[in-house]
Amino acid sequence: MAAMMKALRKMQAARGLAMDSVPVPAIGARDVLVRVKMASICGTDLHIFGWDRWSQGRIKPPVTLGHEFCGAVERVGEEVLAVKPGDFVSAEMHVNCGHCHQCRMGEAHICQNLRIIGIDQDGAFAEFVKIPATNIWKLDPAIPQHYGAILDPLGNAVHTVLAGPIAGQTALVTGCGPIGLMSIAVAKACGSSTVFATETNENRRAMAKQMGADVALNPATEDVVKQILGETNGTGVDVLLEMSGNATAIQQGFKALRAGGRASLLGIPTENVPLDLVDDVIFKGATVQGIYGRRMYGTWVQMTALLKAGRVNLDPLFGEREPLEKFENAFAKLQSGLAGKILLYPDGLK
Amino acid sequence: MAAMMKALRKMQAARGLAMDSVPVPAIGARDVLVRVKMASICGTDLHIFGWDRWSQGRIKPPVTLGHEFCGAVERVGEEVLAVKPGDFVSAEMHVNCGHCHQCRMGEAHICQNLRIIGIDQDGAFAEFVKIPATNIWKLDPAIPQHYGAILDPLGNAVHTVLAGPIAGQTALVTGCGPIGLMSIAVAKACGSSTVFATETNENRRAMAKQMGADVALNPATEDVVKQILGETNGTGVDVLLEMSGNATAIQQGFKALRAGGRASLLGIPTENVPLDLVDDVIFKGATVQGIYGRRMYGTWVQMTALLKAGRVNLDPLFGEREPLEKFENAFAKLQSGLAGKILLYPDGLK
Amino acid sequence: MAAMMKALRKMQAARGLAMDSVPVPAIGARDVLVRVKMASICGTDLHIFGWDRWSQGRIKPPVTLGHEFCGAVERVGEEVLAVKPGDFVSAEMHVNCGHCHQCRMGEAHICQNLRIIGIDQDGAFAEFVKIPATNIWKLDPAIPQHYGAILDPLGNAVHTVLAGPIAGQTALVTGCGPIGLMSIAVAKACGSSTVFATETNENRRAMAKQMGADVALNPATEDVVKQILGETNGTGVDVLLEMSGNATAIQQGFKALRAGGRASLLGIPTENVPLDLVDDVIFKGATVQGIYGRRMYGTWVQMTALLKAGRVNLDPLFGEREPLEKFENAFAKLQSGLAGKILLYPDGLK
Amino acid sequence: MAAMMKALRKMQAARGLAMDSVPVPAIGARDVLVRVKMASICGTDLHIFGWDRWSQGRIKPPVTLGHEFCGAVERVGEEVLAVKPGDFVSAEMHVNCGHCHQCRMGEAHICQNLRIIGIDQDGAFAEFVKIPATNIWKLDPAIPQHYGAILDPLGNAVHTVLAGPIAGQTALVTGCGPIGLMSIAVAKACGSSTVFATETNENRRAMAKQMGADVALNPATEDVVKQILGETNGTGVDVLLEMSGNATAIQQGFKALRAGGRASLLGIPTENVPLDLVDDVIFKGATVQGIYGRRMYGTWVQMTALLKAGRVNLDPLFGEREPLEKFENAFAKLQSGLAGKILLYPDGLK
Repeated sequence: MAAMMKALRKMQAARGLAMDSVPVPAIGARDVLVRVKMASICGTDLHIFGWDRWSQGRIKPPVTLGHEFCGAVERVGEEVLAVKPGDFVSAEMHVNCGHCHQCRMGEAHICQNLRIIGIDQDGAFAEFVKIPATNIWKLDPAIPQHYGAILDPLGNAVHTVLAGPIAGQTALVTGCGPIGLMSIAVAKACGSSTVFATETNENRRAMAKQMGADVALNPATEDVVKQILGETNGTGVDVLLEMSGNATAIQQGFKALRAGGRASLLGIPTENVPLDLVDDVIFKGATVQGIYGRRMYGTWVQMTALLKAGRVNLDPLFGEREPLEKFENAFAKLQSGLAGKILLYPDGLK
Repeated sequence: MAAMMKALRKMQAARGLAMDSVPVPAIGARDVLVRVKMASICGTDLHIFGWDRWSQGRIKPPVTLGHEFCGAVERVGEEVLAVKPGDFVSAEMHVNCGHCHQCRMGEAHICQNLRIIGIDQDGAFAEFVKIPATNIWKLDPAIPQHYGAILDPLGNAVHTVLAGPIAGQTALVTGCGPIGLMSIAVAKACGSSTVFATETNENRRAMAKQMGADVALNPATEDVVKQILGETNGTGVDVLLEMSGNATAIQQGFKALRAGGRASLLGIPTENVPLDLVDDVIFKGATVQGIYGRRMYGTWVQMTALLKAGRVNLDPLFGEREPLEKFENAFAKLQSGLAGKILLYPDGLK
Repeated sequence: MAAMMKALRKMQAARGLAMDSVPVPAIGARDVLVRVKMASICGTDLHIFGWDRWSQGRIKPPVTLGHEFCGAVERVGEEVLAVKPGDFVSAEMHVNCGHCHQCRMGEAHICQNLRIIGIDQDGAFAEFVKIPATNIWKLDPAIPQHYGAILDPLGNAVHTVLAGPIAGQTALVTGCGPIGLMSIAVAKACGSSTVFATETNENRRAMAKQMGADVALNPATEDVVKQILGETNGTGVDVLLEMSGNATAIQQGFKALRAGGRASLLGIPTENVPLDLVDDVIFKGATVQGIYGRRMYGTWVQMTALLKAGRVNLDPLFGEREPLEKFENAFAKLQSGLAGKILLYPDGLK
Repeated sequence: MAAMMKALRKMQAARGLAMDSVPVPAIGARDVLVRVKMASICGTDLHIFGWDRWSQGRIKPPVTLGHEFCGAVERVGEEVLAVKPGDFVSAEMHVNCGHCHQCRMGEAHICQNLRIIGIDQDGAFAEFVKIPATNIWKLDPAIPQHYGAILDPLGNAVHTVLAGPIAGQTALVTGCGPIGLMSIAVAKACGSSTVFATETNENRRAMAKQMGADVALNPATEDVVKQILGETNGTGVDVLLEMSGNATAIQQGFKALRAGGRASLLGIPTENVPLDLVDDVIFKGATVQGIYGRRMYGTWVQMTALLKAGRVNLDPLFGEREPLEKFENAFAKLQSGLAGKILLYPDGLK
């Protein structure tokens, strides 16, 4: 095996990324080395590429990005029993400490000392990536391999949708980026009766319908709240799945939520959002949930079961593929609002 | 309107039923009179027909049977606002007292003073039936009318399936009578990844597959527990939906349940069932739920939402239809194990 | 029985209240007439007295105020079975419609058509008050009678505290008005390990300690967030019980809440509150609950059980008593920040 | 440090135990060596002493018993960060595999590959015991040290009581051995309104009252079901906490449970228990929970919080103390029904 490998890295505290040649990671007794087959670009990667304020505070260059991927196990540490070389895997890239209050409570996804592979340490935009054995997720052969590259965002969607009842419930998905789109498919697969989606981008609205949305609305031109109330007998939706991080969308979502409804918030607003707590939360008796990451590993179990059973069709999200070196193309397309995911191949397209 | 009507009644404390002519019910200020369009025969009706021990203790002849039905509102009491003449409706036939501990806790379905229309007072095997306004359920035009005649058992199925998580869960339905069959469809509609069904009757197994079961097993000839463990990686199913009331099926169901799983019991055993509480419940950390009736009216809301959205296809269950007078035919077919429901028409087939 | 009675009423759309003589209410078949023994003044009554913006939009004078009370049944309608003349009772003053989505779902406390006795129709600041039989709550003799006059706010406290786990949990009560003070006692009675309270009023902080608070902080002079984090090993509290409606207190409460914690909001802010949704809700994986009224009637059952068992000592809250005519005294004392409840006696002090 | 130590061991497949001298355990990189200060005898130890059928199938002699203990950390492996030498600790003695379905779901307490220290490998009836760092539980100085020796059974009690709502609920504890007695105290500390206890042993009934039971009944001489129904207005108790494993007690418990109630079963019956599933579970809409071990580590967090806050007084349970060598005395007293725990001191009484 070669000692060096290609990697797409943040080299310095400035806009941009660069291909580099770095040593193949050495692994410890409880680590797994994975040969990356495909990786996928997250919105977070776009922020780091652009070097926004959040990135400036969090990223310590040089570091290899990439936290959505799948590949084959290349090598395992001597204490690793869960997988063996050749197994096709993905991984949970949030690494928890195991001893803080939240870890002890079974809430490892909100560990006080969480580190993220591909953010806080070298990630999967490379030929190889090192993963702790606890975080490896072996993929069932019944699941299409390329789905394995987007389990991180799909896990966000599953976590959000299944954070409360969804069967026989009406739902509103605000924001149809990749996670919003996946949420639509997951909600329908899990028995949601009617899924409303809001999104200003026309391509994404079209894709929302493909993913199963019953109604796709454009908040730039339509009175979203009025329409949803109209279609729910004046009651509002049972569930708000907030995927946009947009203040207006959040406010509309709360107005469209029924009294007693659930608002599950995953999208990240860039500033404080003025909420009408009285009318939208308190008098409504609403439940608002902050959603972060994926439950470790309950969400992975649920997601795997749905995928293995063929209950969630993610194919509309795929299409664009690039070798890792052509990352500039991929980032540019996503920046311009492409409605789907782009797969990067460190070892070339096959 | 005529003063007298046809009704299918238990006339005396003995086997059998008879058509009779009785006065059209007079209604009070908060009652609704419904012209029955279709009614359906429940297993309980078979027990009453046969005059088994349970019937002997509960039924006080003469009484008109029938608690699964739909029809059009004929007349409403002066205080009734929820429906008006002409509305197409079904009804919850369990009438709760409103003031016992359970009613106060929001658990009206297990009211201490529950009375059942069609069991404890005159029911829907008649041209007209009187229903308290609280119990009337108006049907959305998007729902096929004949589905309205089987909402009582469908509600049992929805109540059972949704008594805990089902999305992304494996489930075992033991017993494929009508409610078992409906449970299969509901579980799949709500995201169950794999549904196993067990049933000795070959026609019912075939129908289980039609309703969406992934695997239909014959416990008379197959080692059900071994097969299910084999197909679940030795873990067992997440959810047991017990619909048979059969002691062996219950015991098999518990053996096939995973540690930490949920067993929801709706089927009614005719005698004490010896349970291996230690291995099947305690060491397993299992949750066992007794399920009775339908949540009033949460189950009705869920069921309506699923039906209105077209998420549950019940068509395979229908086929046989008879005018009410030909009830003997219908009861005979059901007694011989017909795998589906029979609709009775008090006003003749249309 | 006299035909006329004394009542404390809002007579016109302006500041103030006045004693009036009005007919004793006539009751219908399902109503109960109660002879009011004691009534208590709610913060809402102060708002209506002062004729603030909310009052101007909601209150239609003339109307008798008063929605916290207890008394003896004087007379019952012919269909009333739950109580009989002489029974000592209080009542849920929120009257639900029974047929909206929320009522059907068992969430009557957030009924879409809720009416409040003492706000939307004549209330309990009078010699007699008319209550629907469904809303009457018979009081166990083991419960001190004067507690019966404050079950409405105590129910708010119980509803809030028991809206999630509390046993073995640390809690922060922000705002020590009467409901905040009651929440402290309820939380401790239900196993909260440590209760922090914040309040600027010194008397109320002292009373917070009397009610069982382990730590009472003054947010005007102390760094509340830092102190709470310090005393919780940097983790924060498990539960926030927000009782102040004060924007700063709400923000502090969220900062002091642990990741994965529960924020139950009962206090009513007078304007939009800018929330740091990202850090305080989303990344924290927090659950935020709007709390309104009392669960009908689950909260009443819980509250009664706690009181009957002597688990909650409310005595520190009582002290001041006035005949109804002396209402000006009582309102003035409360306006000036009295830390407790004042009982009004329509029939004179006894 | 000495190379050899004293240990109380099962030496062969037969009745009895013996003191032995064995090497002090060698520890791995992620292990902790604890110097045992006090250990406590579990009912399971009595079974192993007596060499009953269960023991014969499970225990592989020679093995050191003991799974209830506390002591000071003597030495830690090089990767251990959670504790350091001198820390006073107890431990969860159930060691989970980390990769089975249940471990992945956050249900490590029902791990498919669970091993128990003191049962399946050498335990704490010795001068030293080796514990994996994940399982060590550091004790807060506010908690009395001797309580540290019984956290295993106290955890059973906390797990059982808090497996569902308890605040404002009536509870029945069937069986007042140590865990039953602890359950009484925990239930009261967490807001149970009335705790009924049943127990044939008079000393234990007396201790039940000391621990906080409101009513202690003798099922050998009293009609337990009738009395409990009488004291609950005919409704029955909200919660059954089954601690006896006795078939009659289990059946009585179910009869005394209200419709919609929760039955949490911890006691281990020695044979199949015939349950009236229809009347006691199904028609009742009851929830039955099998309880095993302690949630890892949610139960430990809850238990620690309750103890640290002084909410649970366990002092009545203590009294008898013996040096480890005098184990025969201790086992004999427990066998004869002593109502409490006996502490064993490997290093002599201090």
